[in-house]
Amino acid sequence: MEHMIEKLTELESNVRTYSRAFPVVFCKARGAEIYSVDGRRYIDFLAGAGALNYGHNHPALKESIIEYFLGDNIVHSLDLWTAAKYAYLDTFDRLILKARGLDYKVHLTGPTGTNAVEAAIRLARKIKKRSTIVSFTNGFHGITMGSLALTGNAKFRSAAGLPSVGNAFMPFDNYFGKGVDTLRYFKKCLSDCSSGLDYPAAVIVEVVQGEGGINVASPAWLQELETVCRDQDILLIIDDIQAGCGRTGRFFSFEHAGVVPDLVTNSKSLSGFGLPFSQVLIRPEHDQWEAGEYNGTFRGNNAAMITGAKALEYFWSDDAFADEVRRKGEIVREGFLGLIDLLRYRQVEAEERGLGLMRGIDVQSGALATKITAEAFRQGLIIETSGHSGQVIKCLCPLVTTGDQIEEAMQILRSSIDNVLG
Amino acid sequence: MEHMIEKLTELESNVRTYSRAFPVVFCKARGAEIYSVDGRRYIDFLAGAGALNYGHNHPALKESIIEYFLGDNIVHSLDLWTAAKYAYLDTFDRLILKARGLDYKVHLTGPTGTNAVEAAIRLARKIKKRSTIVSFTNGFHGITMGSLALTGNAKFRSAAGLPSVGNAFMPFDNYFGKGVDTLRYFKKCLSDCSSGLDYPAAVIVEVVQGEGGINVASPAWLQELETVCRDQDILLIIDDIQAGCGRTGRFFSFEHAGVVPDLVTNSKSLSGFGLPFSQVLIRPEHDQWEAGEYNGTFRGNNAAMITGAKALEYFWSDDAFADEVRRKGEIVREGFLGLIDLLRYRQVEAEERGLGLMRGIDVQSGALATKITAEAFRQGLIIETSGHSGQVIKCLCPLVTTGDQIEEAMQILRSSIDNVLG
Amino acid sequence: MEHMIEKLTELESNVRTYSRAFPVVFCKARGAEIYSVDGRRYIDFLAGAGALNYGHNHPALKESIIEYFLGDNIVHSLDLWTAAKYAYLDTFDRLILKARGLDYKVHLTGPTGTNAVEAAIRLARKIKKRSTIVSFTNGFHGITMGSLALTGNAKFRSAAGLPSVGNAFMPFDNYFGKGVDTLRYFKKCLSDCSSGLDYPAAVIVEVVQGEGGINVASPAWLQELETVCRDQDILLIIDDIQAGCGRTGRFFSFEHAGVVPDLVTNSKSLSGFGLPFSQVLIRPEHDQWEAGEYNGTFRGNNAAMITGAKALEYFWSDDAFADEVRRKGEIVREGFLGLIDLLRYRQVEAEERGLGLMRGIDVQSGALATKITAEAFRQGLIIETSGHSGQVIKCLCPLVTTGDQIEEAMQILRSSIDNVLG
Amino acid sequence: MEHMIEKLTELESNVRTYSRAFPVVFCKARGAEIYSVDGRRYIDFLAGAGALNYGHNHPALKESIIEYFLGDNIVHSLDLWTAAKYAYLDTFDRLILKARGLDYKVHLTGPTGTNAVEAAIRLARKIKKRSTIVSFTNGFHGITMGSLALTGNAKFRSAAGLPSVGNAFMPFDNYFGKGVDTLRYFKKCLSDCSSGLDYPAAVIVEVVQGEGGINVASPAWLQELETVCRDQDILLIIDDIQAGCGRTGRFFSFEHAGVVPDLVTNSKSLSGFGLPFSQVLIRPEHDQWEAGEYNGTFRGNNAAMITGAKALEYFWSDDAFADEVRRKGEIVREGFLGLIDLLRYRQVEAEERGLGLMRGIDVQSGALATKITAEAFRQGLIIETSGHSGQVIKCLCPLVTTGDQIEEAMQILRSSIDNVLG
Repeated sequence: MEHMIEKLTELESNVRTYSRAFPVVFCKARGAEIYSVDGRRYIDFLAGAGALNYGHNHPALKESIIEYFLGDNIVHSLDLWTAAKYAYLDTFDRLILKARGLDYKVHLTGPTGTNAVEAAIRLARKIKKRSTIVSFTNGFHGITMGSLALTGNAKFRSAAGLPSVGNAFMPFDNYFGKGVDTLRYFKKCLSDCSSGLDYPAAVIVEVVQGEGGINVASPAWLQELETVCRDQDILLIIDDIQAGCGRTGRFFSFEHAGVVPDLVTNSKSLSGFGLPFSQVLIRPEHDQWEAGEYNGTFRGNNAAMITGAKALEYFWSDDAFADEVRRKGEIVREGFLGLIDLLRYRQVEAEERGLGLMRGIDVQSGALATKITAEAFRQGLIIETSGHSGQVIKCLCPLVTTGDQIEEAMQILRSSIDNVLG
Repeated sequence: MEHMIEKLTELESNVRTYSRAFPVVFCKARGAEIYSVDGRRYIDFLAGAGALNYGHNHPALKESIIEYFLGDNIVHSLDLWTAAKYAYLDTFDRLILKARGLDYKVHLTGPTGTNAVEAAIRLARKIKKRSTIVSFTNGFHGITMGSLALTGNAKFRSAAGLPSVGNAFMPFDNYFGKGVDTLRYFKKCLSDCSSGLDYPAAVIVEVVQGEGGINVASPAWLQELETVCRDQDILLIIDDIQAGCGRTGRFFSFEHAGVVPDLVTNSKSLSGFGLPFSQVLIRPEHDQWEAGEYNGTFRGNNAAMITGAKALEYFWSDDAFADEVRRKGEIVREGFLGLIDLLRYRQVEAEERGLGLMRGIDVQSGALATKITAEAFRQGLIIETSGHSGQVIKCLCPLVTTGDQIEEAMQILRSSIDNVLG
Repeated sequence: MEHMIEKLTELESNVRTYSRAFPVVFCKARGAEIYSVDGRRYIDFLAGAGALNYGHNHPALKESIIEYFLGDNIVHSLDLWTAAKYAYLDTFDRLILKARGLDYKVHLTGPTGTNAVEAAIRLARKIKKRSTIVSFTNGFHGITMGSLALTGNAKFRSAAGLPSVGNAFMPFDNYFGKGVDTLRYFKKCLSDCSSGLDYPAAVIVEVVQGEGGINVASPAWLQELETVCRDQDILLIIDDIQAGCGRTGRFFSFEHAGVVPDLVTNSKSLSGFGLPFSQVLIRPEHDQWEAGEYNGTFRGNNAAMITGAKALEYFWSDDAFADEVRRKGEIVREGFLGLIDLLRYRQVEAEERGLGLMRGIDVQSGALATKITAEAFRQGLIIETSGHSGQVIKCLCPLVTTGDQIEEAMQILRSSIDNVLG
Repeated sequence: MEHMIEKLTELESNVRTYSRAFPVVFCKARGAEIYSVDGRRYIDFLAGAGALNYGHNHPALKESIIEYFLGDNIVHSLDLWTAAKYAYLDTFDRLILKARGLDYKVHLTGPTGTNAVEAAIRLARKIKKRSTIVSFTNGFHGITMGSLALTGNAKFRSAAGLPSVGNAFMPFDNYFGKGVDTLRYFKKCLSDCSSGLDYPAAVIVEVVQGEGGINVASPAWLQELETVCRDQDILLIIDDIQAGCGRTGRFFSFEHAGVVPDLVTNSKSLSGFGLPFSQVLIRPEHDQWEAGEYNGTFRGNNAAMITGAKALEYFWSDDAFADEVRRKGEIVREGFLGLIDLLRYRQVEAEERGLGLMRGIDVQSGALATKITAEAFRQGLIIETSGHSGQVIKCLCPLVTTGDQIEEAMQILRSSIDNVLG
């Protein structure tokens, strides 16, 4: 492995990220477990930062894609109609949309999250003929120039070499702590024509901010935001890229609040198998695209549509899977509350946050969080940090992680905290 | 098929493009042939607009990816080090870079072309601490906001809802016809501090403009452009997304001119199998990224790296394949010259252009080009148009298209011209 | 007069503003009184929106400028050194700066407020090598593109046809009512690197927002803002264009709070005589301009420097004038409080606000304020409205307005309220 | 004078420009002559860079303004209607517009050139609902952010700290030397929807580029530009700030070509007396401003309107003055041709350019031009350089300069060239 690491370091750009925190070479993986080339086993609570909700190499999905390839079915075809696209769209419409009483048209964008976000905000600007999109503190929506303007992270923003255009930030729920109504500022700015807020085309928001540090918008706050948007002729875009596909214990994260966005962005686990795939859901009355007005070579990845359709059938034909996710979310939550007791015993103030299996422990210090996750890695658990200063230990374990694996991970975290603070 | 079309039309956003010109549902494909669900066979000269240089479902690539999946190897892992990444980078370095005396570090960006372009221009801005990137008339570099500023197409630009920032356009080679030195304008603007051109960080250029209408930059023009960049402290970025991976009869399109760009963007056929995959090649002295300064969920698609490495071994271990591409390019060229005779006989002025198997016939009229390609589709050939008004019939057939298939395509085009103009 | 009005209406662009609310042709004026061509006398509480602090045609200033012209002294000379410039700068330094223990270099910009603001923010960007300038809700800083980005007013912003670049708005003091600490949001955004606030080069703020509706920043708020700027390496720019030159009862409005800005913009009454004139005051360590980096034909209006120097000598050689302004401010305040009693008696909730002779009555309704000021005009008082919806009756009477004139104006307002609400 | 210089250097910002090339303190001036405080006489061929076409302190203008002030007429009144405004607009309409068969409404903007330019381009954007304004290489239109985007000069542009938005540069007439049709590029970009040129709202152009180095657009080129604009639904804005008010031997510089712009900007000598004053002329059908959509404190400077109206009556009641300017222009031209012979004799290649009394000698080297003008100043002639590298000695002498003064200036230039090159 040493030789491989040397070579990889030499050949790959300095921009590489995760191989710095987890500097081994991986090869095999299944479910919530991943193996390095020297045979070491790790529990994977990073899981593609939300791209592997169904775990690595799920057998049913794997079978579907291999069968598809064996049959010389179409892998790439720009945005031509294919049997795979038909299967995916029909399944998605049936099992996800109709089952929830939702009505959306699907824009199969380039297969990355930022492509979907750029498509959504462009459509919003076109519909409303206004240029401003409102996003929220600690939001993350991607880093191509259009999405970056909506992303709070200063590291990416300052690396862009250009100032932002067409954006405005508002405070997310609880940004000033419990009890401060952050939508008040937004409403005041909208009602005051000298507030400096250019009247927005749309609001884009995450129900749970993943990169931002597992900040959960309350149902009441989301409902109020929806009301503001409806009343003020502003589109509501929910970026469900990280929190979607069951992560929070519902297929869409916004189901908890019962809001119905005008546009929704999906990606990450949408293919189910870790393949690049993205889409924008568009309320039919908003599908004001002209033909070909937004394009890209890899929109509508057929392989991803095959595994995506299979994942929907396998996991979303009834409510059992979602129920299970919420149940496991409770288990992780209780585990984390135990860790918080431990941290407090060690004089570290900490907070548990999350929804479903998107959970985090805010230890208030990026340095401490890094020490704990580094120690956890040494002990065989891959788990990352998030938040503005990396102060939140962030669990995005596969939704198929077993109870034993969760228990093992909790023990590693407990031991890591002990080792770091002891 | 009718039911499928009805359902697809209902479920998919109006933004869909290719299913309008080719309104059937496809299912199977191999090499240069593709089949609709009603069993009809088509020759595919669209071929993913350059994403399928090795044809559909190449057996060697298919085998490699199936084997990889069967072994429970890692499909998705953000940008962690994997055995697949090692295999890809090592193979790319050995068979492509070292074999050409090139020295680049590889930035595995999000898997779409526009992601790679955004990464390249951001790095250029960071290196040079200047905001302007120069691109060229009829250039196409993607449509996320950063790339869109460099893309000439008015349809995409006007749909953006925001004015461009940080860009400047210069005339491409032969923009005013043969004999006008278009770099003179660029050089004059650089030398005149009141020209209005903000001193650029970089130039981004395609050796053959694909979307722009198969416009080929001459080696002399490219060499002069490289000299200007070197002399004036400007980075040279070659966007080889559509013209790269052997399309022009060399792996990199810029090999014809012998220039050595500072940064190169690759995508489209880089995976060999039609899977989303992109990279930026960075001269080592320019690899000034800080860790994690540019990110994205699907950077370094492992499945694509497996087929990508296999494609390099299969096609690029020696010069035979490239030689064959250039030979077939001559065949297509001669076929096109025959079509031009036919067009002229029908009183239509036309021009043949191209490099290797990236070729087009400019029939001067988008309406005529559309009629011809529509008729060709009726006769079983999928071929698209490009250029500012869609006036160029554009051949991007798989590089593995057989002589018989080329002959058949030419006959269809001949017959289509006859039918349209007869 | 009817013929003149007809002709003026025909010849002047529709953009004209004040001639709509006050549709007569004026000719003569002295002190706080102004006459229409048909001989009608008006009390002028508009007074050039702060440009006529010393009243119309003050005899001492008039004499100085006539004498200057009679002597064939230099009227225009770009930014060459002149005896007039020497006299002005020396007087300003002596009577205003040194007398207050202040140390600034003077940048004589183009003679409009927005020119000064553009110069100040450009210098701030240059010094800090950052692009963002923070301004505040309801702030007004001019409407050329650079200043407009910092101006809250939606009417001007939306007329620009371009989105803003390089700006961020924060809530002004009391924006959410008394008791809400609005700087908390700014401080939180600065401390949170994912807040979306690009780290600013500078803050620009008015001590009393004139166009914004006579909103007064408290000394404590300004001191806290100064502390934030000092601690966070951000420049503090005070835009004293409307509130400066004695309007608030001190020469600079920020004297009340004891803060010392890095940059100050002055204009409006700086010439004392209503002539166009502006400047930026720059702390010596920040005077990082290169020669000629900011220019303009009319910077350093010699005629304005003559009257400007004279005004300083006449009004600012000791504290008597400022004391008098504060005393009159109290008289206006008491008059306004009486009007508020009257309004409340008529069931209209209203609030009095202001500092020195920059005062307003917020009647909560733009329609009502317009009715009252229209009736006042009918009765011989010129007074305008301001605020986001024009809901504030705004007194910017000349500082030399006599007690009798103030009394007359109050009676007109009282009678106007009675007539409108009776 | 030494003490004054010391004090001025201490008090004034480093940004000061002209006092560096001409480092004396001036006090009196009349016609084309200006005096320093130590009694030295200079011939002034700088003349406010075009702001003093009628010379310093013209007796008739001086008398009119003194009389106005003595009568306690209104000096400042925002944009209220005044007798002065009536007199100015009526005179301008009668003597300038109607006399030339022109029909424009007048927008009295803030009194600087850049204010007028910002108003013109904002109106153009509003009318056409497009954001791009096309300007030309070496153009100068002011340096507030909106105008700066249209100004070629790199020194100002790079000092802005923000990239430009909403602009595009095209090559000015003769930019590539005689015989190259520079409008071809513009026309090609307009006709090619993938050229990268966002379809413009307007073109803004100077008939003679003053700051750009006395570059004269030929009548044919301007007529062709007008045709392009008319045919393509683009507004034509002529920025006549430096070349207008008789400078070229016609009141408007565009009269030579017979074009009729949609919008015209005037400033500089518009007041006749060196007072700040600007306007935009708007074809009636384009006067689509809403009331108050563009504002500013000093729009419609009454004092400037008095001298402006007087100047129109005095100089523009018949053709005699314009004839005289053209005659003197010929004298300067011949003098300059003599200087060119002298320069060539000294082995310096040089070119004479200009229209009317806006003339220059291009000596190809900024260093040489600076040496010559510095020596000329030593000998009593104030004359500046312009052009991208300051390579053009630029004559903008008052239009009232006498034959003797011109002769004296020519002798000084001749002697300066001898001394510098001898």
